[in-house]
Amino acid sequence: MKVIAIVGYHNSGKTTLAESLVRELKRRGLRVGYVKHDPKGHGETDKAGSDTHRLFEVADRVALISPGKLTLWDRCEDDPLGVVKEYFKDFDVVILEGFKSRRGIPKIAVGEVEAENVLLKVEGTDQLNHIIELLEKMEDNL
Amino acid sequence: MKVIAIVGYHNSGKTTLAESLVRELKRRGLRVGYVKHDPKGHGETDKAGSDTHRLFEVADRVALISPGKLTLWDRCEDDPLGVVKEYFKDFDVVILEGFKSRRGIPKIAVGEVEAENVLLKVEGTDQLNHIIELLEKMEDNL
Repeated sequence: MKVIAIVGYHNSGKTTLAESLVRELKRRGLRVGYVKHDPKGHGETDKAGSDTHRLFEVADRVALISPGKLTLWDRCEDDPLGVVKEYFKDFDVVILEGFKSRRGIPKIAVGEVEAENVLLKVEGTDQLNHIIELLEKMEDNL
Repeated sequence: MKVIAIVGYHNSGKTTLAESLVRELKRRGLRVGYVKHDPKGHGETDKAGSDTHRLFEVADRVALISPGKLTLWDRCEDDPLGVVKEYFKDFDVVILEGFKSRRGIPKIAVGEVEAENVLLKVEGTDQLNHIIELLEKMEDNL
């Protein structure tokens, strides 16, 4: 499996790039996952008082089976590769968004941002084909 | 692993019973999961327009790593045992809520409700210890 992170400051266009990248990789028939970093806990993924919210207070892991969609809540460390290993086992590519300071993960830097292991610096989606080529040449890193 | 469903009509007290049951089982040192059925898709587990919501339109599986909490979205069939097999592998007990018409799963019926494979009919949490005893005697069914 190949894991790559898209890093950059707020509003630099990371999500739009991730979206285009996932779409292109899916078009090539690959199984593609996406993991976003929410270090400040801004993501609201359940409503206080809902059944699943109440049960996540006491159970180790909680799931909700809706039509065509599963939502799952688990405890976790701030460890993207651990999450990918556990939850994306049979995937071809997983795109991380964020995790700028995480060492050892190859990165695409959007806009002016400093990080280690940057394969390419881009603005917006202008170098989408170049990123796809880099991914194709990249060896499995997980 | 033991899997049991709590079934009953809306507002019969299923979630309160599940909560008490999970708490008791956790007190016994067990690893306990909870899976709720949302057949009408009422559960809102992400906001339209959020990064993860956008990416779930294109990616096969999406995760959000918040402080201490992982949220994961996947495509799925309406198949609780399939979900438990994939996502609750190393668990001791998984409590399902709902899935009244699902055959082959042992059930606790809350209030007046018809279902097959009902181990016990209860009102509220009055028979919590009895349910725990039944679970202790029950053989692994998954």
